[in-house]
Amino acid sequence: MPHIDVQNDLPGIRSLMAFRPETAKPLNELAEVLLRDTTGLSRAERELIATYVSYLNDCFYCHNSHGEIACYYLAGNRDLVNQVRENYSAAPISDKLKALLQIAGKVQQSGKAVTPDDIDNARDHGATDKDIHDTVLIAAAFCMFNRYVDGLASNTPIDLSTYPLRAKQVAENGYGSHIYAAQ
Amino acid sequence: MPHIDVQNDLPGIRSLMAFRPETAKPLNELAEVLLRDTTGLSRAERELIATYVSYLNDCFYCHNSHGEIACYYLAGNRDLVNQVRENYSAAPISDKLKALLQIAGKVQQSGKAVTPDDIDNARDHGATDKDIHDTVLIAAAFCMFNRYVDGLASNTPIDLSTYPLRAKQVAENGYGSHIYAAQ
Repeated sequence: MPHIDVQNDLPGIRSLMAFRPETAKPLNELAEVLLRDTTGLSRAERELIATYVSYLNDCFYCHNSHGEIACYYLAGNRDLVNQVRENYSAAPISDKLKALLQIAGKVQQSGKAVTPDDIDNARDHGATDKDIHDTVLIAAAFCMFNRYVDGLASNTPIDLSTYPLRAKQVAENGYGSHIYAAQ
Repeated sequence: MPHIDVQNDLPGIRSLMAFRPETAKPLNELAEVLLRDTTGLSRAERELIATYVSYLNDCFYCHNSHGEIACYYLAGNRDLVNQVRENYSAAPISDKLKALLQIAGKVQQSGKAVTPDDIDNARDHGATDKDIHDTVLIAAAFCMFNRYVDGLASNTPIDLSTYPLRAKQVAENGYGSHIYAAQ
């Protein structure tokens, strides 16, 4: 049961966004820019970074919902999403994405954990300043979203079969502010 | 030196916001709602929560800049801000704010660290669902802002005499999107 009366039965962050639409608006806009921009990192790569950080933070709702969105962009390759969650260094992804996931994992611990060597490694594999910026901010943003969802004990569907439909909606329509109110 | 070339000499998060205005817009809007709303929690209380979480995350730029904004709202009572940073339970603040700072400190560790007892304690001291919501989201948001600032090693002025002027500007004019570009 959620820690507060959100006055709706929506799952996860959507229940909180319906409760407080004033903060939902910038949160959705932030997600839209960070996760749907297609310059530099692809949408799949951005969602994989979000999924990995949410997995490290043990946020069931977030790592499953964003994992499903990544899966949608990856033509249903759920195995790849699971590999990134559990051991990205052995996954069949680019060395650039591995280097960025390494940075994201550091950010999950603390901003100060990111070292110049981490940055050099990403650059050596082709990451631009914008790629590095977006990776750090995606990782930081999910340290917020995960704490928001679990800090208020929001309603988390444990039936994984409910996640793909929502993932398809987000992948096709984005994180628009209209989204959080839809069932 | 920042990990990326932000192409400006602005301090802290402002340098990152000028580098990536597309994400600056929702980040400023989020700060504006969370830290400047005056229903329920006061602006001083909101900034004290932000300062405390930033202090726990050891983010020098954030805990000093938001500490100065809190100080401005508190008619220059810097001792009180320092007491909240270092030992809020002994500070001359309301029991309600103490209970909310306890929740904020849990969120800084992990969303899952917040217990029903923490929530009941806040409610027993007069906190509403909105107060609890905003406390959790302020704490979660500063787990993002702090990681963003330090994860990119943004330029951090160590001279504390530079912080009050900026604090006055934010306290008087808000976290408008025009702010980050101003010197």
